[in-house]
Amino acid sequence: MININSLTKNTTLKLKLLSNLNGKPSNLYDAATHLIKNGGKRIRPYLVLKCCEILGGDEKYSIYAANAIEMIHNFTLIHDDIIDNDETRHGVDTVHKKFSLPIAILAGDILFSKSYQIVSDHIPSHMSQKVISTLSKSCIKLCEGQYADIKMAQNKSIPTETSYIKMIEKKTASLFESACAIGAICAQKNSKDIKNFAKFGKNIGIAFQIVDDLIGISGDSKITRKPVGNDLREGKKSLPIIMAINKSKGRSHNEIMKVFGNVNSTKEELVNAINIIHKMKINHIVRKQATNYSKKAKNIINDYDGKQRNELVELLDFVVQRAL
Amino acid sequence: MININSLTKNTTLKLKLLSNLNGKPSNLYDAATHLIKNGGKRIRPYLVLKCCEILGGDEKYSIYAANAIEMIHNFTLIHDDIIDNDETRHGVDTVHKKFSLPIAILAGDILFSKSYQIVSDHIPSHMSQKVISTLSKSCIKLCEGQYADIKMAQNKSIPTETSYIKMIEKKTASLFESACAIGAICAQKNSKDIKNFAKFGKNIGIAFQIVDDLIGISGDSKITRKPVGNDLREGKKSLPIIMAINKSKGRSHNEIMKVFGNVNSTKEELVNAINIIHKMKINHIVRKQATNYSKKAKNIINDYDGKQRNELVELLDFVVQRAL
Repeated sequence: MININSLTKNTTLKLKLLSNLNGKPSNLYDAATHLIKNGGKRIRPYLVLKCCEILGGDEKYSIYAANAIEMIHNFTLIHDDIIDNDETRHGVDTVHKKFSLPIAILAGDILFSKSYQIVSDHIPSHMSQKVISTLSKSCIKLCEGQYADIKMAQNKSIPTETSYIKMIEKKTASLFESACAIGAICAQKNSKDIKNFAKFGKNIGIAFQIVDDLIGISGDSKITRKPVGNDLREGKKSLPIIMAINKSKGRSHNEIMKVFGNVNSTKEELVNAINIIHKMKINHIVRKQATNYSKKAKNIINDYDGKQRNELVELLDFVVQRAL
Repeated sequence: MININSLTKNTTLKLKLLSNLNGKPSNLYDAATHLIKNGGKRIRPYLVLKCCEILGGDEKYSIYAANAIEMIHNFTLIHDDIIDNDETRHGVDTVHKKFSLPIAILAGDILFSKSYQIVSDHIPSHMSQKVISTLSKSCIKLCEGQYADIKMAQNKSIPTETSYIKMIEKKTASLFESACAIGAICAQKNSKDIKNFAKFGKNIGIAFQIVDDLIGISGDSKITRKPVGNDLREGKKSLPIIMAINKSKGRSHNEIMKVFGNVNSTKEELVNAINIIHKMKINHIVRKQATNYSKKAKNIINDYDGKQRNELVELLDFVVQRAL
């Protein structure tokens, strides 16, 4: 399986990212780069570069688009952490926790601004217009998806699987979608290829989020650096939790509901609920759903040959099998 | 003097603005358009249109850039109100007060995204690249300026006039600067004209902010819908307040400092401090500074003739003389 550190440590990518984010006042730029410096798998920029490569393009322009995508991703993390009131990410304090709420809002906004500046200043106009159109549309979807997520969390009822998938298509998959579409744009491909690669990215994005949900409920707490069954305890309406609640009956249902959204649940109660969910084979069903999305993605790049295709397939396998 | 309502009521501008901001979930778009619907002078989009016109361009593309500028302006208002913890603007509740903090963050972010989408989707690539480069750079400056403003407010000492002007050059003037530069870009002018119009806008922006500061200390509370001497009471380090504190001595200085940042000041104490400031002719000095910036702006458009020039001169006079 792919070594995710090889993505994170992609030197060109990392150096460009951080050198593009130098500036004064340094404290504001420190806040903007705080999460970037402390982790992140760099999957989205990697997708921009590899999709461009597989279509015969080179890194000359895609490297800037890749940087922009990672900045936008980080901008959403900073603002989402404020919205969700989260205190840690990548094992460190979130930006608003470390730098204050006002600075975190500005840190997100400046990353957002920088991403558009980098694209417009380094990519030729016929290409950058398409990149920006794609990027801005996915940002609109991200906001709409994040809004849907907030409302879903506030709503007392448990959503259907369909409405949940619809939400993550916007909240998570849209940036994967645009990363891959932008890779195709940077390879100067026609709209058919761009659409195909957008679909490719969308499927990866959905698979990625579903597996994220799985890790949130049954991930190894040593690796995730979060308590066992964290999402269940916090009442997060993730796909496995939605399925477990909607499919369980009688006593099993009650045991799950006892810990769902109950931050005072004991470890025993949580482990018990997780065991019930395991017995329902929810993990298996959810992992299979992720695999299906990943297969759809693989089919799209089936006709391509060579090293890049293999690397993308490896990435897809990583996305489905990963433990973090 | 110019009737500012004629700007606000510019039908094309208003209709395009709001029709571009329809979408679902409607509550999120309601939050995004809340301030736009409840006021605003539309000076920045007006500048885009008029600068384009005076340079011989038409509204075909500038109207979209004008819309984008107003969206960005509103995005900054929404986030600034969160940062400053303000509860009212344009006489109505701020977005975070009315819709909650999470929705307000997203409402700002979606306006920001929409502005880039509109430019990239409606303006030809050779032009939109320049528009986006200009726009994104001014957004970076806005964030840096807003950061400087936060730090200035937190700092116990009173800033110098020079450092204050430097701050508002970024926080306020940069969007005026890019509005006028973008007008020139939409008229397909060369970089010399673009630079000239950027300078024109920058000078208007500084004049605008200085007069805003003046209104904040001695504006008619019936018009401003804020208590008498509001900025003084709130300890805002605006230009007239900085001048008054730095220039006053002895008992006068003490009387000003007694109410500065003291929300429990009585109306009598405030009126007394304002009278001291009046006697120091601070209003006169500050208004003269604004007039100087406005003169610099006027000089830049001196060589142009006709209706558009007169309209821009009228706008400049409005900016310096306005009471709100």
